[in-house]
Parts: sequence; structure tokens; C-alpha cells
Amino acid sequence: MNLHVSDPALAAALRVDAARLLASIATLATFGACADGGVNRPALSSTDLDARRHLIERALELGCTVHTDACANLFFRREGSKPLPPVLTGSHIDTQPSGGKLDGCYGVLAALECIAALEDAGICTHRPLEVVAWTNEEGTRFQPGAMGSSAFVDPSRMARYRDARDAAGVTLADALDTHAHAFPTLEMRPDGETAHAFVELHIEQGPLLEIASVPLGVVSGIQGVRWYTVRCAGTAAHAGTTPMHARRDAMTLAIDMRAQIEAFATTLGGEHTRVTFGRWSVEPNSINTIPACVTFTIDFRHPDAAVLDAFDRQLAECAARCGVAVETLFDHPPVHFPHTVVRHVANACAALGARSLTLNSGAFHDAMYLAKHCPTAMLFVPSRGGISHNPLEATNDEHLVLGTRALAHCLVHLCNETP
Amino acid sequence: MNLHVSDPALAAALRVDAARLLASIATLATFGACADGGVNRPALSSTDLDARRHLIERALELGCTVHTDACANLFFRREGSKPLPPVLTGSHIDTQPSGGKLDGCYGVLAALECIAALEDAGICTHRPLEVVAWTNEEGTRFQPGAMGSSAFVDPSRMARYRDARDAAGVTLADALDTHAHAFPTLEMRPDGETAHAFVELHIEQGPLLEIASVPLGVVSGIQGVRWYTVRCAGTAAHAGTTPMHARRDAMTLAIDMRAQIEAFATTLGGEHTRVTFGRWSVEPNSINTIPACVTFTIDFRHPDAAVLDAFDRQLAECAARCGVAVETLFDHPPVHFPHTVVRHVANACAALGARSLTLNSGAFHDAMYLAKHCPTAMLFVPSRGGISHNPLEATNDEHLVLGTRALAHCLVHLCNETP
Repeated sequence: MNLHVSDPALAAALRVDAARLLASIATLATFGACADGGVNRPALSSTDLDARRHLIERALELGCTVHTDACANLFFRREGSKPLPPVLTGSHIDTQPSGGKLDGCYGVLAALECIAALEDAGICTHRPLEVVAWTNEEGTRFQPGAMGSSAFVDPSRMARYRDARDAAGVTLADALDTHAHAFPTLEMRPDGETAHAFVELHIEQGPLLEIASVPLGVVSGIQGVRWYTVRCAGTAAHAGTTPMHARRDAMTLAIDMRAQIEAFATTLGGEHTRVTFGRWSVEPNSINTIPACVTFTIDFRHPDAAVLDAFDRQLAECAARCGVAVETLFDHPPVHFPHTVVRHVANACAALGARSLTLNSGAFHDAMYLAKHCPTAMLFVPSRGGISHNPLEATNDEHLVLGTRALAHCLVHLCNETP
Repeated sequence: MNLHVSDPALAAALRVDAARLLASIATLATFGACADGGVNRPALSSTDLDARRHLIERALELGCTVHTDACANLFFRREGSKPLPPVLTGSHIDTQPSGGKLDGCYGVLAALECIAALEDAGICTHRPLEVVAWTNEEGTRFQPGAMGSSAFVDPSRMARYRDARDAAGVTLADALDTHAHAFPTLEMRPDGETAHAFVELHIEQGPLLEIASVPLGVVSGIQGVRWYTVRCAGTAAHAGTTPMHARRDAMTLAIDMRAQIEAFATTLGGEHTRVTFGRWSVEPNSINTIPACVTFTIDFRHPDAAVLDAFDRQLAECAARCGVAVETLFDHPPVHFPHTVVRHVANACAALGARSLTLNSGAFHDAMYLAKHCPTAMLFVPSRGGISHNPLEATNDEHLVLGTRALAHCLVHLCNETP
């Protein structure tokens, strides 16, 4: 097949092979396949090692060199014609315990399909192109999540990460040793090479593209997040003997706090506010005892750092006023992807004649950390029903293919950017 | 000491020995004493068997005969002068895991003190007087609670109760065998003897007497209770990617249900309403996932059966309207103690010149079941701060003594009632 397309970016996009892409997704999903159609592939588990072996074989067949690093990230590199820093793309292949076939995997497999399309089209780019599978993004086996990408960006994190233990007591250090023994010939990636750019293709994991009936999302950044626990104290007392007016029910206080927090979160953040009270614990949690203590968590997200800061202040004031204790568990500032990379993503959509929506990512991704290392951007395809972290996670085939074509287009432009 | 009192009821009341009563409470509290001042004495545990041995020795010293029955209840009998059914009094000596010295124990020890006072005063009553220690009232080791008293009233319950298992897997049948081996000479109480009356002296376990500054409570009945679970379904979704308007948060629904239930419970039951939402469970209970399912319990109590029935109907209507599932876990109708016994309790308070408050019991007691067997009443003394089921459980010494005097007065009158 000769497409006679003069623009190499468009040529690569058009050489993306739909059947090969979809088959590769189906094949990777066999590693850790569950009876319910979902996938369970914990990071660095034996299932994950089998899946990694499969990817390595595929990359070698495509002519790539394969490297790893201190956190067992996998790098599949297609050389460029010039001695320039590479363009990175990819995502992760570990899953939630009851995850789907696409979260993370799609970004890795679409990137490998881009390399296959470049091969098929006989295109040589100026810069090297490296496909990365980041280790332990989900944070399900080892906490925190996004270990591989955050350690790539800040190698000093590894000392702490290596002590992390899974539920069976296995440390990350042990799991990395197992990985090293499974792949004894894998060379370490040379240190100190800064990437030219990173682009991550991912399913949206939310409903916005589907609601808008738009097939592609140009991701302008990742909203910031703050996690807290709120501890509300009351007085345990007998359900039968304590008059209503003499009670100090901790759940009554917690419900009042939740309402106040939701109200000022909405006032502060408007339509971009995401505030979730996901985890609840009640003591003594007895049917005939008035709750003595209720602890709940807050997950507050917003793309504007000033809103996150204002939320933090109002929460502290509200807690002081109501006599409850608040503790911060985690926070990450909003990430704004630079126009220099985002424009290539938007241009790719336009070049393919596809409608796109510019949006913020609601979920965390490896790109959140890579953005500290090099100019970064993301591309989304729709999630059916907005469902993710679930065996029902799905994206229409034509969206999966279109997303891969847009990625190929964008990567070729980035790989051909010269200083 | 010769008190020259012609009324034997008053004579017995005045012979109650404060020091002996308080010492007996302190001694029983040594069986299962905890470092925090509380008591942990699970029903039929080795600690409980030691405590039972102590009570049996005391009763034998007082000249009582001792019997047991199929549920290991202990009966300490002082004979009367006529072949008439006995008057029963007593409570239980098992405790909550972190219980106090008084809940249950006070009623048993005050009753033994009444027998000692009758002995000291040389009073012979027409009817026998039997002090009972009912097995497993708290329901902490074996479920349900009030096993001993409910099986006494309805022996057919024993077949089911014997299969109940504690947290270590020991059945009640095993525990009863251990009890039988520990007390091999204990005779079984003769079957078929209906009691003339039952009077239970107990700490209030609530704040009403203390708030009213009244030392004695004449208990007119025990409020009815209904226990339910309410299951509210939502949709699990990603905290970061799901817009607020697209959420179905199960906790939002549960909080709305709780508010509606509390509102109609208060409207229906007025000041006597006791409604508690004590146990909460949230799924998946993850910080970054919108709650998919929230289950909570309702403990609704009221002295009026019509109010309990109306609550049941309104709850069903509310659940149907809001699309939530309600399940009934337990119910017990209100108990109204007959005037024939209650008047003896009230007369005793008056005869001692003590102020009393007529009130309903908010907590369950063995008297709830005995009321099905024979005319029953209860007498309360104040609980400091309304606190119970807690090492801090306490009652002023003068109230403990006064309650015992009133019990003695009341028991002598009941024991001298002839057909």
C-alpha cells in the first residue's frame, strides 16, 4: 500500500492499522484476564512480568532497543536520525484489582502501534521516539501510585519507595529484584538524558467527551488535588436512655460539616469543583450506641491553585469554628501543560478532521509527574458511560483508532522539531 | 440493735446494712476487674464462674437453697411460711467488655442484702423470696441478650440458644456444660412454679433522675423498640473525573433519608422519641471514589405501640418513595408494668420519705421478659452523668443504699400478699 502522502505526520497517522491495534489490546488483556471480562494485573506481579515479556518481544520485533531503570520502567526506543533528546510517549500496564482493558494499556499499545506505523510508512524522524511503560501507576499493590514516573523525574524518591510493602509484606525492593532476575539481559537506560517532550494518550475515565459527542480530548492540564481527613467527636451514649436533647451525636456534626464544606467548595470553585467524601468510619459503630466519633475524607480538586489554597483556608476556619480536627493527607498542585506541546495535539486532531474538546484531566496520570521533567501534554478518547476502574470500562473501536492516529501525527511533529 | 418497728417492711428496709452492701459490690467487682476501674466478665467465662461461686457461698451462708436451670440462671431461695408461689427479684452479673461495677450486679447484690436484712430483723415472710442472677443479659458473649430470662419465660428458646457461638466459636451448649461441671452438686429448680411477682432494681443508665435531682425511679414500663437496616444505593465513580451534577452519591441519599426519618420520628413520638443511627457502612469506602452503597441502622424506641407501628408504616413509605431497601432486624413491643406491683414500688419510696419519679425504662432489662411470666416492676437509682456500659459508671453510695431499702420494703409487702 502506498498512500502518496507528502506530510510524514499524516502518512504515519494513516498507516495506523486498526485491526493490529485492537488485536494488541485484546492480547495484552489476556494477562490477568478475569471471568467478568475485567483484568487484574498488579504491578510487578508474575502476571505483570508475563505481560512485560510480551511487550518486550513485540518491541524487539519492531526493531526497538529495550531499556529499564531503577524502578523497572520499560523504555522501547526507535532511533532518530539526529543526536537529539528523544520524544517520550506511553502510560502504564498495571491495573486496578477489578480493572478494565484500557486504563493505561491503551496508551502503551497505541504508542507501539505508532512505531509499527512509522516502520510500515518507512518514516525516519529526526529525534528518537521512546515508548514507556511506567511501573505501578495505579498504586494498588504499592503506595503511592505513579511510582515509576515520579521516580524517573526525581530519582531520590527511590530510597523511600523501595521500602513500600504490598498487602503480603513484599517490599518494592523485593519485587524489583524479581523483575531483574526475570529479565537479566535488560540494560539500564543511560542516565541524564532529558526528554524533548512527553505525550500520554489515555481514556478519559469521565463522561465529558461522551456528553459532548466529541471523539478526542486535548488535555490542557491536570487539576490540583487536596486530600484531608476530618475527625468529628461526639459522646457515646445509650440509644434507649438518652433523650434527644441531651445527645452529642458525632454523625450529626459530621453531616453538618459535610454540608458546609460542599457549600463553600462550590462557591469557591464553581462548575470546575470536584469534592468527594469517600471514606467514612464511625465509632463505636454499634446499633444501640450514639456515635462517639466520625472520621471522613475529603478529596477536593480544581484546576486553579488559588481556589485550592482558598479551600484550604476556609476548611481550617470551618474546622476551628465547629471544633473538629482536620489533617492533610496528600496534595498536588494543578498542572498546566505548555502550549508548545498542546498545540501539536490540537493540530493532530484538526489535521485528521476530527472534532476535539479542550479539557482538564480529572484523574491523576503519569503525565502529572513527567510535566516536571519536560514539556508534556495528553490526549483523551471517550470512556463509555464515563466508567473506568471497572470491567465495564470501554471505548468505541473507532475512537481507539482515531486516538492512535492523532498520537502518531503529534509524535512525528514533535520528533521532527529541531533546536 | 432493736429498732422497735412494728411494720416488717419498714423494719427490713431499716436493717439494710450500708457498709455490707457497698462491700459486696466492691467484692463482686474484683472478678474481672480491669486496670481502668471497669469490669470485664463475659457470661459463663471462668471469671463469671468464679463470681458465681462467690455468690453461691454467700447465699448458702445466708441460709438460702441454691438452684439452677437449663440456661444456668442461679436462684437463691429464702423459704416463706406458707406454700405459696415465690416473689422473684434480681438482675444479672455478666458485663459489657468495658463495663462498670453496677449494671446488673447492683440488682443481684441489693437483693442478697435484702435477704441478709430479713435475717437480721428475724422476719419470716408468707411467700418464699428468690434472688435470681440471670445468664447472659448483656448479649456480649452470646447473641441475643437476656438469654437467661427469656429462656426462663419461654423454655422452647433453649434449643436455638444452645447453638449460639461466641467469638471464639464456643457454643452456649459448651459453656453450659462447663458450668455444670463447675457446680456438679447444684440442683435444678423444680419446673412449673409460676412466680407471684418479679421486681428488678437497676441503675437508670440514663440522665433523667440526675437531671430531676430525684433519688429513686418508679419504672412504669419499658419502651418498645424496632431495629432496622437501611441500604441506600448510588453509583461508584471517579472523584476526579465525575462532574458534581452527574453523581449519584449513596451518602447524599443516606443523609437525606436520615433527616427524613428523624423528622417523622419526632413528629410521631414527641418528647418520648428515641431514634439513633448508630452503625454505618460505606462501599467501596475509598478516598477517591464516590460512595456506591451506604448502609445504616435505625434504633427507634417509644413507650406507645401505636407510635412504633406508625413509624414502621412511615419508614416503609419513605423507603419506597426514595428507592432504598429497609430490613427489620429486631423488634419488641412496649412493656407496661401492672399497677399491682408498681404501687408497691411507689409505696416503698413514699414509706422511706424519698422523692421518686415515675419513668419508662429506656434500656432493655431481664424484666422485659419476666413481665410475660408474672406481674413485674422495676426500681431505678440515678446514674452519675447518665453514664453506663463504661468504667466510669457510678451511683452515689446513699442512692445505692436507699434503692436497696426501697427494694426490701417492696419485697416484704409482695411476700406477705396472700391470695
